[in-house]
Amino acid sequence: MTEQITALDLPALDPLPKETQAYFDLCTEKLGMVPNVLQAYAFNIDKLNSFTALYNNLMLADSGLSKLEREMIAVVVSSLNRCWYCQVAHGAAVRQLSGDPALGEAMVMNFRAAKLSDRQRAMLEFAEKLTENPAKVDEPDRAHLREVGFSDREIWDIASVTGFFNMTNRVAQATDMQPNDEYHAQAR
Amino acid sequence: MTEQITALDLPALDPLPKETQAYFDLCTEKLGMVPNVLQAYAFNIDKLNSFTALYNNLMLADSGLSKLEREMIAVVVSSLNRCWYCQVAHGAAVRQLSGDPALGEAMVMNFRAAKLSDRQRAMLEFAEKLTENPAKVDEPDRAHLREVGFSDREIWDIASVTGFFNMTNRVAQATDMQPNDEYHAQAR
Amino acid sequence: MTEQITALDLPALDPLPKETQAYFDLCTEKLGMVPNVLQAYAFNIDKLNSFTALYNNLMLADSGLSKLEREMIAVVVSSLNRCWYCQVAHGAAVRQLSGDPALGEAMVMNFRAAKLSDRQRAMLEFAEKLTENPAKVDEPDRAHLREVGFSDREIWDIASVTGFFNMTNRVAQATDMQPNDEYHAQAR
Amino acid sequence: MTEQITALDLPALDPLPKETQAYFDLCTEKLGMVPNVLQAYAFNIDKLNSFTALYNNLMLADSGLSKLEREMIAVVVSSLNRCWYCQVAHGAAVRQLSGDPALGEAMVMNFRAAKLSDRQRAMLEFAEKLTENPAKVDEPDRAHLREVGFSDREIWDIASVTGFFNMTNRVAQATDMQPNDEYHAQAR
Amino acid sequence: MTEQITALDLPALDPLPKETQAYFDLCTEKLGMVPNVLQAYAFNIDKLNSFTALYNNLMLADSGLSKLEREMIAVVVSSLNRCWYCQVAHGAAVRQLSGDPALGEAMVMNFRAAKLSDRQRAMLEFAEKLTENPAKVDEPDRAHLREVGFSDREIWDIASVTGFFNMTNRVAQATDMQPNDEYHAQAR
Amino acid sequence: MTEQITALDLPALDPLPKETQAYFDLCTEKLGMVPNVLQAYAFNIDKLNSFTALYNNLMLADSGLSKLEREMIAVVVSSLNRCWYCQVAHGAAVRQLSGDPALGEAMVMNFRAAKLSDRQRAMLEFAEKLTENPAKVDEPDRAHLREVGFSDREIWDIASVTGFFNMTNRVAQATDMQPNDEYHAQAR
Repeated sequence: MTEQITALDLPALDPLPKETQAYFDLCTEKLGMVPNVLQAYAFNIDKLNSFTALYNNLMLADSGLSKLEREMIAVVVSSLNRCWYCQVAHGAAVRQLSGDPALGEAMVMNFRAAKLSDRQRAMLEFAEKLTENPAKVDEPDRAHLREVGFSDREIWDIASVTGFFNMTNRVAQATDMQPNDEYHAQAR
Repeated sequence: MTEQITALDLPALDPLPKETQAYFDLCTEKLGMVPNVLQAYAFNIDKLNSFTALYNNLMLADSGLSKLEREMIAVVVSSLNRCWYCQVAHGAAVRQLSGDPALGEAMVMNFRAAKLSDRQRAMLEFAEKLTENPAKVDEPDRAHLREVGFSDREIWDIASVTGFFNMTNRVAQATDMQPNDEYHAQAR
Repeated sequence: MTEQITALDLPALDPLPKETQAYFDLCTEKLGMVPNVLQAYAFNIDKLNSFTALYNNLMLADSGLSKLEREMIAVVVSSLNRCWYCQVAHGAAVRQLSGDPALGEAMVMNFRAAKLSDRQRAMLEFAEKLTENPAKVDEPDRAHLREVGFSDREIWDIASVTGFFNMTNRVAQATDMQPNDEYHAQAR
Repeated sequence: MTEQITALDLPALDPLPKETQAYFDLCTEKLGMVPNVLQAYAFNIDKLNSFTALYNNLMLADSGLSKLEREMIAVVVSSLNRCWYCQVAHGAAVRQLSGDPALGEAMVMNFRAAKLSDRQRAMLEFAEKLTENPAKVDEPDRAHLREVGFSDREIWDIASVTGFFNMTNRVAQATDMQPNDEYHAQAR
Repeated sequence: MTEQITALDLPALDPLPKETQAYFDLCTEKLGMVPNVLQAYAFNIDKLNSFTALYNNLMLADSGLSKLEREMIAVVVSSLNRCWYCQVAHGAAVRQLSGDPALGEAMVMNFRAAKLSDRQRAMLEFAEKLTENPAKVDEPDRAHLREVGFSDREIWDIASVTGFFNMTNRVAQATDMQPNDEYHAQAR
Repeated sequence: MTEQITALDLPALDPLPKETQAYFDLCTEKLGMVPNVLQAYAFNIDKLNSFTALYNNLMLADSGLSKLEREMIAVVVSSLNRCWYCQVAHGAAVRQLSGDPALGEAMVMNFRAAKLSDRQRAMLEFAEKLTENPAKVDEPDRAHLREVGFSDREIWDIASVTGFFNMTNRVAQATDMQPNDEYHAQAR
């Protein structure tokens, strides 16, 4: 936790507040590591907490989108923005959740190469347009999501996950955030 | 609060939880309205709370960037993404905080038209590159921010505000979120 | 009229020829100001006259497009090109002619946010494509304009107004032309 | 003059007003043809006259730019916009005025392939940026033109010619305007 | 053959191997010149031979695409990439093979200006998309080629010719390769 | 070899000519598989042979660029074009040749994330510009390669490898070519 994870000189608090340390210990126990993004935010506990609260709500809370689907959006968006950190970390998550290493690779390299249901194809095309050209997203785009079966609540969730990674990709790129080495070999 | 604020059928909880209602009442008292983005999120209080916690931390908490500077970044990013909601709402904020209506217009129309300090020019050019081309942001971009006087903590804040509006612009565009009418005439 | 309106050192003739002075006096009487673009051209009366003749023909002469519709095209094109002068001046014109300040804002920020008839939507989408990607405008684009009711003469006028602002946006941007301050507060 | 020159059904007045007929006769005498653009505009004499007045002022009146230089800008802009009419007609003009057919081809195909003076290179790079990305043209771009020897009046003229072809390219593309066949073989 | 054809100092072998000299002599006999691209590669005979073998297979061997159609693709791709060498050399080939100088010009300037069959239009639109945006080429694009009558073998050939010029355009641009002067006046 | 490797119905010759079969057997022996690209070309032995001759010359013959450097270019170009086949196959090659799995990932995801020498950074930036914007590659780009130590022959090789993958990426994308499954787990 003392090595520098970003190009900015913003060391984590030392010692960490008890609650934060407990959260990091839980990460180590469950994941075998503390994801570097959490350590990067740990220079300011309010920032860390507001980031993790939003992240956990979007990626882990109840949704009509499966956790895998949310991770697929995460990787596709991160690939369009070419974010090193998020492609590495969430690419591993897609491989793990799907049990299909090639699916994780396809989300990174070109989601059109994957064999996808119409629903998932439409979901990722929407995420792609919303990432590349948000100004032109319009009613027909929402209508198409509804046609393949998405509810309005699920459309909200697709938009929110797409939005979130457009945020976090930029924080990671702007700061040259480095992912934990462990991700590379996971679930290959 | 009953009229539809987005293209999605996701009505606010009715009644709102007491704490949320109190927060909305406070908005009405202070701002003369409840910003529509809060009403849009009010179908799910956890989502509302995690959104507002992050927003308030980024835009209102202590930072080496003034509130006006953070609003300037907000509008420039929203202009690049052509987000209707955020240009309207945060354009008004720039006019109000600066007392300079033309400055708010310039952030919407083309920030290069504004008379800016080297510091603010560099800040907005960084936000522009990070929005348009995050893949190519690199060490020389950070170095230039340091040259004009930004600390590493301030670089983090520029990146975070830029990231945040790249998120919220996309949620607003994806859902056709409508800003409150009151903004248009404010601080002209 | 002696202050510098562009980044170029090209002062207006002094005194102006009688006819030009009379035209400028008429502007002051009718508009409360001489638009800066006219002053910028006044270093050369032939250039001023050929510019104003074309402008007046396109924007004021008989056309199947209303004056408001021509101003809407003007602002949408100027927004795509991010021309400070033209967005300010013609944004004010849209607000004034329509009596709808939010419509003027939407033309500047994202015309897709405005509630438009199919006819006006098609007109602005054509202007957008012709501005962003003239190489790919083709018969189906014209056919769509005819389907929503435009005559061939009106298609000519849409093309001409779109073309004109693609010209004048570039002259204004290349010279850093400043709009009159009065526009900002008009018709808010 | 009876065949259709554009995709729009806007026939030339028949008979033409005397002055217009005289002008067209002069064209035939001097150029061996009436350029189709003039015939395309001849459905409305005011439009024809305001177009030709501006054209003649920009391309033929006194300027620090030679006629060849103005035609070089015309072709480079038309190539960037891929305008069929203007590349054909003005490509011929560059070949003719320069006596160098390969120069005309290079303006159409890629001006970087031509052996150019620093002055002409800078002129064409400015026209290119102003065409492709007018929003980002700024003081350093003007400064560079001054460094290679252009006066402020010449900068105005570069901007005006660049702007003009950004207009007329779009009118021609929007209407599928066809150039006279004669141009193709000229000055090869 | 002693003058420099590219910006790189890579002179042709001197003397050339007998077989190569014989091939160059054949070129002179048949074409009146040795195309400069062959001379550019002649610093290394293996590279020359592997390049010409692939070129001859693609452009001259049996195919459901006519030689003219393959040259049309060559020019359209080279125009999109703005390759000086290939537009000059293959533009001449289109003029020669078609006997229609304007067709060669249209391939260089904007293929949408040419009067084409649905088949040829579809072929060039596929080459255009594959050049500009290979990541998004997908089943509907192949389906459209089949609809207008192309066999799978012909689709392979369209892809291969498009690919080849995306290669050779880049070698020529990277090295500033100059075409033989003779091309300019051919078949005008 | 009977399963379909592309979206086109172009089965390999059966039986293969003796020489081709011997080559494929050698691949199986050395690599544990016949790369699918070879099988895709095997419907036509002349095409297969001219493709492999060029490939082998570029990627395996003597060069001032190491085999790893050539594979790094291959992956960076394929990532920019988002070619599924080539990122998978050549990503594995980078991992294998470098013994550094993260380096292979960085070439796929964003080469700016890798720790590179100035020489390799310049090489990949040149490949990137030549891929994304060949029209604007010019003398200063070559000069920069020379500054970091590349000879003219090495510049040729960088250009040729970059060009080659711009070709083969497009053939693979146009035909939906599928890489061998074995690549995914190699050298992780």
